[in-house]
Amino acid sequence: MTTKARVAVIGATGYAGAEVVRLIAGHPHVTLNLLTSRQYAGKPYDHVFPALTKCIQQHCEIFEPDTAVQKADIFFLALPHKTSMRVAAPLINAGKKVIDLSADFRFKNLTSYEAHYQPHEEPELLKQSVYGLCEVYKDQILKADLIGNPGCYTTSILLPLIPLLKEKQIDSKGIIADSKSGASGAGRSPALGTLFCEVNEGFKAYKVAEHRHAPEMDENLSIAAGTDVHVLFVPHLVPMSRGIVSTLYVRCNENIDEKRILDCLNTAYDGCPFIRVLPEGRLPNAAHVRGTNYCDIGVKYSSEQGIAVIISAIDNLIKGAAGQAVQNMNIMMGFKETDGIDMIPFPL
Amino acid sequence: MTTKARVAVIGATGYAGAEVVRLIAGHPHVTLNLLTSRQYAGKPYDHVFPALTKCIQQHCEIFEPDTAVQKADIFFLALPHKTSMRVAAPLINAGKKVIDLSADFRFKNLTSYEAHYQPHEEPELLKQSVYGLCEVYKDQILKADLIGNPGCYTTSILLPLIPLLKEKQIDSKGIIADSKSGASGAGRSPALGTLFCEVNEGFKAYKVAEHRHAPEMDENLSIAAGTDVHVLFVPHLVPMSRGIVSTLYVRCNENIDEKRILDCLNTAYDGCPFIRVLPEGRLPNAAHVRGTNYCDIGVKYSSEQGIAVIISAIDNLIKGAAGQAVQNMNIMMGFKETDGIDMIPFPL
Amino acid sequence: MTTKARVAVIGATGYAGAEVVRLIAGHPHVTLNLLTSRQYAGKPYDHVFPALTKCIQQHCEIFEPDTAVQKADIFFLALPHKTSMRVAAPLINAGKKVIDLSADFRFKNLTSYEAHYQPHEEPELLKQSVYGLCEVYKDQILKADLIGNPGCYTTSILLPLIPLLKEKQIDSKGIIADSKSGASGAGRSPALGTLFCEVNEGFKAYKVAEHRHAPEMDENLSIAAGTDVHVLFVPHLVPMSRGIVSTLYVRCNENIDEKRILDCLNTAYDGCPFIRVLPEGRLPNAAHVRGTNYCDIGVKYSSEQGIAVIISAIDNLIKGAAGQAVQNMNIMMGFKETDGIDMIPFPL
Amino acid sequence: MTTKARVAVIGATGYAGAEVVRLIAGHPHVTLNLLTSRQYAGKPYDHVFPALTKCIQQHCEIFEPDTAVQKADIFFLALPHKTSMRVAAPLINAGKKVIDLSADFRFKNLTSYEAHYQPHEEPELLKQSVYGLCEVYKDQILKADLIGNPGCYTTSILLPLIPLLKEKQIDSKGIIADSKSGASGAGRSPALGTLFCEVNEGFKAYKVAEHRHAPEMDENLSIAAGTDVHVLFVPHLVPMSRGIVSTLYVRCNENIDEKRILDCLNTAYDGCPFIRVLPEGRLPNAAHVRGTNYCDIGVKYSSEQGIAVIISAIDNLIKGAAGQAVQNMNIMMGFKETDGIDMIPFPL
Repeated sequence: MTTKARVAVIGATGYAGAEVVRLIAGHPHVTLNLLTSRQYAGKPYDHVFPALTKCIQQHCEIFEPDTAVQKADIFFLALPHKTSMRVAAPLINAGKKVIDLSADFRFKNLTSYEAHYQPHEEPELLKQSVYGLCEVYKDQILKADLIGNPGCYTTSILLPLIPLLKEKQIDSKGIIADSKSGASGAGRSPALGTLFCEVNEGFKAYKVAEHRHAPEMDENLSIAAGTDVHVLFVPHLVPMSRGIVSTLYVRCNENIDEKRILDCLNTAYDGCPFIRVLPEGRLPNAAHVRGTNYCDIGVKYSSEQGIAVIISAIDNLIKGAAGQAVQNMNIMMGFKETDGIDMIPFPL
Repeated sequence: MTTKARVAVIGATGYAGAEVVRLIAGHPHVTLNLLTSRQYAGKPYDHVFPALTKCIQQHCEIFEPDTAVQKADIFFLALPHKTSMRVAAPLINAGKKVIDLSADFRFKNLTSYEAHYQPHEEPELLKQSVYGLCEVYKDQILKADLIGNPGCYTTSILLPLIPLLKEKQIDSKGIIADSKSGASGAGRSPALGTLFCEVNEGFKAYKVAEHRHAPEMDENLSIAAGTDVHVLFVPHLVPMSRGIVSTLYVRCNENIDEKRILDCLNTAYDGCPFIRVLPEGRLPNAAHVRGTNYCDIGVKYSSEQGIAVIISAIDNLIKGAAGQAVQNMNIMMGFKETDGIDMIPFPL
Repeated sequence: MTTKARVAVIGATGYAGAEVVRLIAGHPHVTLNLLTSRQYAGKPYDHVFPALTKCIQQHCEIFEPDTAVQKADIFFLALPHKTSMRVAAPLINAGKKVIDLSADFRFKNLTSYEAHYQPHEEPELLKQSVYGLCEVYKDQILKADLIGNPGCYTTSILLPLIPLLKEKQIDSKGIIADSKSGASGAGRSPALGTLFCEVNEGFKAYKVAEHRHAPEMDENLSIAAGTDVHVLFVPHLVPMSRGIVSTLYVRCNENIDEKRILDCLNTAYDGCPFIRVLPEGRLPNAAHVRGTNYCDIGVKYSSEQGIAVIISAIDNLIKGAAGQAVQNMNIMMGFKETDGIDMIPFPL
Repeated sequence: MTTKARVAVIGATGYAGAEVVRLIAGHPHVTLNLLTSRQYAGKPYDHVFPALTKCIQQHCEIFEPDTAVQKADIFFLALPHKTSMRVAAPLINAGKKVIDLSADFRFKNLTSYEAHYQPHEEPELLKQSVYGLCEVYKDQILKADLIGNPGCYTTSILLPLIPLLKEKQIDSKGIIADSKSGASGAGRSPALGTLFCEVNEGFKAYKVAEHRHAPEMDENLSIAAGTDVHVLFVPHLVPMSRGIVSTLYVRCNENIDEKRILDCLNTAYDGCPFIRVLPEGRLPNAAHVRGTNYCDIGVKYSSEQGIAVIISAIDNLIKGAAGQAVQNMNIMMGFKETDGIDMIPFPL
């Protein structure tokens, strides 16, 4: 047996970080060797997440770059924006592989990042980073040291749209993305808006046409389309813990129907183990991908309006965060793409 | 004290029927005098709905027209499509007021009804019926004997759009309605798809561009617009019991902004006690109207795409069914429009 | 029309306070004249609770005793323990009626209060206060100026047990109360444990045999039994917003059966509009009392073990807090006991 | 690589059957070779459970004994009581390993089975069957051909109590089991009581002291105690999909405390990979075992009442059904006990 690669999860006590920890703990080729958390430093990890009793034995530590680089070969950063870029720099300089779950390394366009986030302190690093949308940028991910892991909403929107834009099957103008997410997307920090009683039996839109995932979508859709794309992105909060469903409304260029759209998607994702293009007449459900790294895609074309309704579903914490991060690691490290993330969906 | 008008609820053991029963039981000017149910005939109503113990003392009876017309002045029909038209006829002939919650009397256009439902057996009655969208057709409701009570989704879509179409504030082409409903919309008959475990922690679209509420929307939007309107209607199922949120995407005709849209809505609904046009920056939430007859409407305009996002929320069983039915009764009978349906929303 | 009594809600922006506000806003004989909140002072109340848009027009104010006594005749205090006693004193001295929803005036036994809470700063006021368990202490409530409104769990346990202890139908030793509460019982302050994702799809016991409602139960059960009673109280958290179900296990003294227990309860609560003793074979459900002031009670006797299982259900925010508080006001003020709280339960 | 053993799931389209299918599909040493379903015969399995698209390729077949014995070596029966015994007989006669998830082979005491179910048609088979409570009857399971897989509630109650009764740490009289289960326990057949709207925001007890799992508990607890045990068993329905929490009230024999109870449990379950005895001060939560084969156990002793509160949590579909069934297979077949069921819990 070969030595397993050592993994560190920096910021291990948010929802995305904990999901990385869980997936890494079950991964056949790596071993979890460092967990950091400012808030819970010194505490056993299973005191923070009692579900993981007997499964994760480590304590939370404070992130300290010099020590960290001794302890791990691969770093997952599940930190707030801005903190991430500061943490990433010394790790990259020490020759480590870094997969960053924040927005700090997701943008090619520095101006766009700075307009929606803050001044970037590591623009050179940003240039060498690769956007970790696995099925689309796999060739670059293979050679990357630093991955900007895509946003959850963004993943659910890019995966169905990019092949259709590349193949000019749909109009790049007027795209509408009506997305719905479970509450875990809002994170683990206590806040009034994510209390059980505020979410349960409710449903609402928020940040309509103002969400920071939109420029991330636009950048990648524009690359695919070869022209500027501006999505109208409207996120909603669903009373469930996990899952994103995006309902996409796109105008179609010519004599199109469901079959042609499905063919285009099937061709694009042939051999991709985590994309399930559903047959005609079937549509995704957040429940069907819960706990898995799948992205399900279904299509319905309305000839009356000339609009295709394309619907995708992912688990926001897995394909939308931790699972895609592990998939990126698998690609970067030459593991099998499905290692550690080949969960079979729950039938309910 | 004057004599109270006597009410019958025909088909009292579905969700909508039970909600009519509850509202009528708390209404100041009417008394519940007949409850019918084929399935539960002979059973005390509170055996069917134990929540109503001590509140509703009656037994369920079999509907028998000759007896029924002796027992009540106002009839609410909460029956399946087709059954309703057959039950309505003898009641109308006997000079009763009838409010029908099925689709049987919602259409002006017989062809459209027959295309989406079945042959209509009472086309003459259909002609004299009035579509009971209270805030829009109040003048006709005042004089009506037979009301076709609007569908739940339809209500949530017509109320925000009709004034904007009438005032030519929005383009009548390319309207998209992305609607989300709680599970009670699917009714009380046991079915796999509405089992707790099938709905909980899931989210899905269904009947995309195929739902029978769409022609009902189109008919009324076309009247308002003075031209043919075809909405692209995409319903979704939310893991909650009650509530509909509709996110409407409409192109705008010219120099529009949120203020102009809100002004138009505020003008149209001035004096309407159940429409709450939210101030700029505020958006509806299904939780805020739960258990009430309110329709909340909020607006966000995206100048980048030239699309207004108009969002409405109702309780599907109240404003979308039983509450609007009682509101129709109030208008028809000359009661105060809010009688019996002036519930204050729960803060959570 | 006579002048309506003026009501103040002090601490109006927690869940219990907001529920008092809602009930008072719909009450026929009082008017809401003052809302206070330290956190939201100066803000329109409907910005804090958007559900109440158009229903509550006031702004939140800072509580200032001299002003407050000018503005209202009846004060509901929905404040943290300790804050309450300090606020109550000047109001009582000014001759106002005060209904306190905290624990500060619930105990006859000063030692017990101080053991489980903190030193009491107003022991004289405590002496003159009345424990507001409406159905049990109505005679004293009628004449009271200061009410200690019972705890939510406590209400669900005292109502079924007090008549049975008084009538010596059950053994006062070995009583077990296994209670289950929705998440609103934990309040509206953001906390990790009440985030949607922490509560949803989970179920757990907490503060087993350590909850501060137990001594409140013991004091009142001991009075009823005429001997010391110590309940073993085990609360659990249910993934729902509202409701408490308490499953009580009591040994029975002699030849007992369901009928005798039900007879005892029916006799005790004859004429009490909010107690629904269910017929043999029927058991309560939190859903059946949601949004109402009812306490439902059902009984099953197991002859094999000689134990009666007595089950109660209330809405923790209504009969367990705001509704009982309004019921206390109704009794104190000579209103009809059901005024403003005669809601008919939702059929679902 | 050796040949994998072939598995059949008979009755594969209920919730428990589907969960067996899912676990078998991910198991390293067996292969799924036959799926049967009367209702869905001929349909692709992923049409019945769309979540399993791309994961399960088979069609549902009709169970036909002669064909079935050709297709598989190990049979999981997820059938209704009575059907199971008829299906098991020819399989056992053909020398197959059978794990039955119904109650048909759970009882040693034929009279008890027949009193609570129906006449047993295979009493000889019943005699040779082994009760599949893995941690307790492992020695017999090792040699068994026919397993009666324990009931879900029963598992959650036997695992914590059996060691304590064996070691005389608790009184065998007066045991109370207050259990709470998610809705999947009621199965996948459409029924009014398990509709989303009937379960959501509700909580209720049912079959109080009348549930058929009680005699199954009694039989096994009596064996452990060496004397007749009669548990008072009160099940409740929780608005969640998966999970059982059992709160057990037991009187203690002498100078006991939490430490002694925990020591006894830790000793009994030393080396058992699926039992997590929680340290003092920690209590189980259904959420912490969801999706896993763990049984978590926590303890709180109340010296005031001399009662120990012992709380267990399992996933009813896994440790309470399919997971324990696979664990039984692992033991019978000499696989590693955790093979295919070593899932790491979700942090949320």
